[in-house]
Amino acid sequence: MDVAEHASAFDRHDRDVVYRCIFERRDVRSGFQPNPIPDETLARILRAGHHAPSVGFMQPWDFVVVRREATKRAVHDAFRDANAEAAEMFPHEQRGAYRALKLEGILEAPIGLCITCDRSRHGPVVLGRTHQPATDLYSVVCAVQNMWLAARAEGVGIGWVSIISLDALRAALAIPAEIEPVAYLCLGYVDGFARRPELETKGWLARLRLSEVVSFERFRAPGDGDGLAAELDRSA
Amino acid sequence: MDVAEHASAFDRHDRDVVYRCIFERRDVRSGFQPNPIPDETLARILRAGHHAPSVGFMQPWDFVVVRREATKRAVHDAFRDANAEAAEMFPHEQRGAYRALKLEGILEAPIGLCITCDRSRHGPVVLGRTHQPATDLYSVVCAVQNMWLAARAEGVGIGWVSIISLDALRAALAIPAEIEPVAYLCLGYVDGFARRPELETKGWLARLRLSEVVSFERFRAPGDGDGLAAELDRSA
Repeated sequence: MDVAEHASAFDRHDRDVVYRCIFERRDVRSGFQPNPIPDETLARILRAGHHAPSVGFMQPWDFVVVRREATKRAVHDAFRDANAEAAEMFPHEQRGAYRALKLEGILEAPIGLCITCDRSRHGPVVLGRTHQPATDLYSVVCAVQNMWLAARAEGVGIGWVSIISLDALRAALAIPAEIEPVAYLCLGYVDGFARRPELETKGWLARLRLSEVVSFERFRAPGDGDGLAAELDRSA
Repeated sequence: MDVAEHASAFDRHDRDVVYRCIFERRDVRSGFQPNPIPDETLARILRAGHHAPSVGFMQPWDFVVVRREATKRAVHDAFRDANAEAAEMFPHEQRGAYRALKLEGILEAPIGLCITCDRSRHGPVVLGRTHQPATDLYSVVCAVQNMWLAARAEGVGIGWVSIISLDALRAALAIPAEIEPVAYLCLGYVDGFARRPELETKGWLARLRLSEVVSFERFRAPGDGDGLAAELDRSA
């Protein structure tokens, strides 16, 4: 191992900054400001993505930066087609609520960003991917989450637009068939970040209690009398 | 939208704390200290995972906390079997280097944590998953990355062990067939965090230049004369 260069725990203030960033990150679909993101800022966010963990240090990502109106419009057309199909998939009683939600800011956000996975980068056998083939895709998702958090700290909102068929996204951005698009993000400055996720405040779904999703030693085995279980209950 | 409760950008110090956390996070496979992680600390890390973004606010994750020696041993057996198979998959000239790497700390780390995806939580149609079926798995990966960063701030190292067959992991932790294991993590205090990834310092692969993985408007289209491209070159 490299000599440990970085001390261990952050001090209390800095630790709480990391949690603040995690808890205040939001999926942003509206309220993007038109002012551009400076190149230095966008470079910092991209670098945060590039320093994500990757299986076998594969770094399988490419980041395609979208700034032209015509490209955004092609992506938006693909969203519009998919979203019309999506609405029809919900039970009748949910369709109205679904259609009332604003689910993307493709045209308003100054920057679009597609993050892809090159599954054959560095050859067919990848350290750590041998028994879990999806881990290269998962590495790319770690890069997305790093960027999401970095952007929060920068005052930049990010929205992940997933209501697009992957082939339509490939067509809009000239992505070859063998490359897997993982995420299309919209980035732009926002005035502030909502206190809670929009799907929670609008009543689409409620946040689960943390204690409901933690189990002990076996899947969904309760932690009766366990100190950690009690701690999770306390912190709700 | 909820009233924006949180101001926008972090101040300079706090912003840099977030980047420090991102750049200093490491995949930890050795050097775990035997001292236990307090319940309050582990609860904070789990809460960071639970506050990840999720497609349609689905929160499809379960977190299975592993502390018993017998459970760790079952997971380690599964790793050992997979790792022996994995070594054989590499070209002859790489096998020695592969076998020399320490790729997990399953038995040494005080805490094991399996994070799974319940793909049918909240029913078959999920907002945002209609056209990209993997987005629920991706949500779980976002939770992993949140925990990885929270742990860094706590001085807790995390290693993601992916050299295990998913069915062996299901057997070790009584995870039903319809639930998808996404990650098995090892957690424990460490004395410090290596300055660079171990696979980089050991020469397994080199870090790509950021400018190599960023393109403009179209997949792998160069940004000749572009200010952002110049910025990426400058920051290497």
